[in-house]
Amino acid sequence: MSALLEIVSKCNCVPDIELLAEREGLYRFLVNGDTVGHMSANDVAALKGVLKEHPRPVFNIDDTQRTLSFSDGFDDCATRSAAVAELLAQMRREKTWASLSKWRGELYPVYDGSAGVAVMVERAASYNFGIRTYGVHINGFTRSATGELRMWVGRRSLSKPTWPGYLDQIAAGGIGDGMGAWECMVKECGEEAGISPELARRGRFAGTIQYFTRSKLGLQPETQFVFDLELPSDFVPVPTDGEVESFLHLTLDETIERLRLGQFKPNCAACVVDFLVRHGVVTPDNEPDYLAIIDCLHRPLPHPAPRFR
Amino acid sequence: MSALLEIVSKCNCVPDIELLAEREGLYRFLVNGDTVGHMSANDVAALKGVLKEHPRPVFNIDDTQRTLSFSDGFDDCATRSAAVAELLAQMRREKTWASLSKWRGELYPVYDGSAGVAVMVERAASYNFGIRTYGVHINGFTRSATGELRMWVGRRSLSKPTWPGYLDQIAAGGIGDGMGAWECMVKECGEEAGISPELARRGRFAGTIQYFTRSKLGLQPETQFVFDLELPSDFVPVPTDGEVESFLHLTLDETIERLRLGQFKPNCAACVVDFLVRHGVVTPDNEPDYLAIIDCLHRPLPHPAPRFR
Repeated sequence: MSALLEIVSKCNCVPDIELLAEREGLYRFLVNGDTVGHMSANDVAALKGVLKEHPRPVFNIDDTQRTLSFSDGFDDCATRSAAVAELLAQMRREKTWASLSKWRGELYPVYDGSAGVAVMVERAASYNFGIRTYGVHINGFTRSATGELRMWVGRRSLSKPTWPGYLDQIAAGGIGDGMGAWECMVKECGEEAGISPELARRGRFAGTIQYFTRSKLGLQPETQFVFDLELPSDFVPVPTDGEVESFLHLTLDETIERLRLGQFKPNCAACVVDFLVRHGVVTPDNEPDYLAIIDCLHRPLPHPAPRFR
Repeated sequence: MSALLEIVSKCNCVPDIELLAEREGLYRFLVNGDTVGHMSANDVAALKGVLKEHPRPVFNIDDTQRTLSFSDGFDDCATRSAAVAELLAQMRREKTWASLSKWRGELYPVYDGSAGVAVMVERAASYNFGIRTYGVHINGFTRSATGELRMWVGRRSLSKPTWPGYLDQIAAGGIGDGMGAWECMVKECGEEAGISPELARRGRFAGTIQYFTRSKLGLQPETQFVFDLELPSDFVPVPTDGEVESFLHLTLDETIERLRLGQFKPNCAACVVDFLVRHGVVTPDNEPDYLAIIDCLHRPLPHPAPRFR
C-alpha cells in the first residue's frame, strides 16, 4: 500500500525539467523564443540524419545551445504543420523513431507565447517533441439517497499498448484536431462507455489537473480538463470501443484502497485524488500530505498555454 | 469591469519572490537552511537597532548574504518562540515596527523543512517576517429546487483596518495557535456569521487556494483551506462580531459582476473564482484565460509546509 503522495508523484514524475534537460542533454524545442517542448539527444540525432537528405531544412538544430527550432520560411502554422507532417510520414516509413509505428492520424496543437497554434504535430510524435498536451478525464459517479458517493471506473483492455489492465476513469482521452474540451468529453463518454450525449451533457467542468510525466513513450507535460459526471443510480456503462475491458462501481473506500495498491494508471490516479480532495473525502484530518498532494496535482508548466475564444 | 485573470492576479501579485528579493534587497529569513520568509531592508535595519541593545543575540543578520537566522542557542521551537515574543513585545512598546500597533495576541506557526514548527510568531509581525500563513475561507451557498446556486457573501465592516466595505466570504479567518483547519472553520462560521456548530459541520473541505500577495502590511505568501458550505434555503447569516456589516445573497451572475467590478477583497475574489471553476460555472467555453486563472489560484510556494498528524 502506497501513500497518496507517492501515487500522485508517480504521475508528476519530472519535478524539474530544467535539471533533467541539463543532466540528460535534452534539446529545447523553441518557437519564437518560447520553449514548447524537449527532445532527447537520440531523437535529435535520428532526426538530423533524415534532415541531411531532406530537400528542405525544416528545422535548425543548434548542438551548442541544444535547441531545435523552425528554419526561416517556416513561419506560420500551416507551412510548419505541412512540413512536419511530410517529414514524420517519411520517418514513419523509414522507422526513424520507433514511436511512429503507433501512428494515430490525430493532430495535436502546439501553442506559442501568443497563445496561437504554432504548429500541429501527429500525436504519436508528441512524446518525441515533448510538447504540452491536453486531454479530458471524466469522473463518473453516483450518489445514493443517503448521499454516499460511488465511482464508476474502467479497467483498461489487456490489449492496450500502455497500462493494460490498469484502472482508468469512466472515460478519458486526448484533445486533438482543434476540438474543444466539452465536445471531446461528450465524444469520449460515448466512445468509451456508451454514455449518450444527453447524459454526458450533465457533466460539469471541475477545473484541471496538471503534471509533467515521463513514460517509456517519452516526456509528457500535460493539462487534463477534469469533469464530474453524476450518473443515475441505475445507469451501467458499457464498454464500446474495445479500449475498456469492464467497468467497476466502487465505493470510495474501495477506490482509495485500489489507489493505494497502485491499480490505477498514474494520471487517472491523480484525477481520482483530485476528485476526493474536491469532494472533501481526502482532508488534512486524514491525509498528512494534503498540501503537497494538492501542489502535485496543480504543477505549473513552463510551456505556453492556449487562450480560449 | 476587469477580466477574471486580472482579479486573481491582483491577489497573487508577487509572481517571482526571488526577483523581488533581488530588486528590493529583501533579507531571506532562514531556519535550518530553509527559506521560511523575507524581510524588507527597512525592517531589518530597525530590528538591528533593537538587537544592538538587547541582552541576547536572538538573530544573526548577514548583510552580505542578506539573511536573517536564529543565533546559536535558539535551537528549538519553545526557546525561539519565547525569545521572539519578548523581542516583539519590546518592539511594540518602542514602536519599532508600525505593524505592531495592531497586535493580535495570536501566534502563527512557521514550519521548517522537516514539517515541524520552527517558531511561533505574533500574527501582527507575520507580514514583517514575510512568513507563509494559513487560513480558512468558507463558500456559503444555497441551491434552489431547480439547482440554481446562490452565494452568501459578507460586506466587511467600514471600521475594518484592511479592505473596509469590500465583499468577503460568509466567513474566513487565519489559522493560529495550533488550531486545525476544520476547527477553525467551525469557529469562524460561528463568530462571523452566527452559524451554529451543527450547521457549520455540514461544510466540506474542497481543496486549497494559494497565492503570494503583498499589501501595505507587507509580504504574505498564503495557503487558504477552502470549504464549501451548502446552507438551507431559509437560513440567513447574522453579523455577530462586528467584522461584517451585512450579508448579501447573490445569484452567480451577480457574484461574477461584483467580482469584475473589483468589489471583493482580492483573496476572497480568488476563493470565489475557485468555487466557480470547481462548480463548472467558469469554463474554457466562457473564459479565455481558464488555464492561466487555475494556475494563478494554485501558485506553488517555496516555503516548507506542514504535514498533518
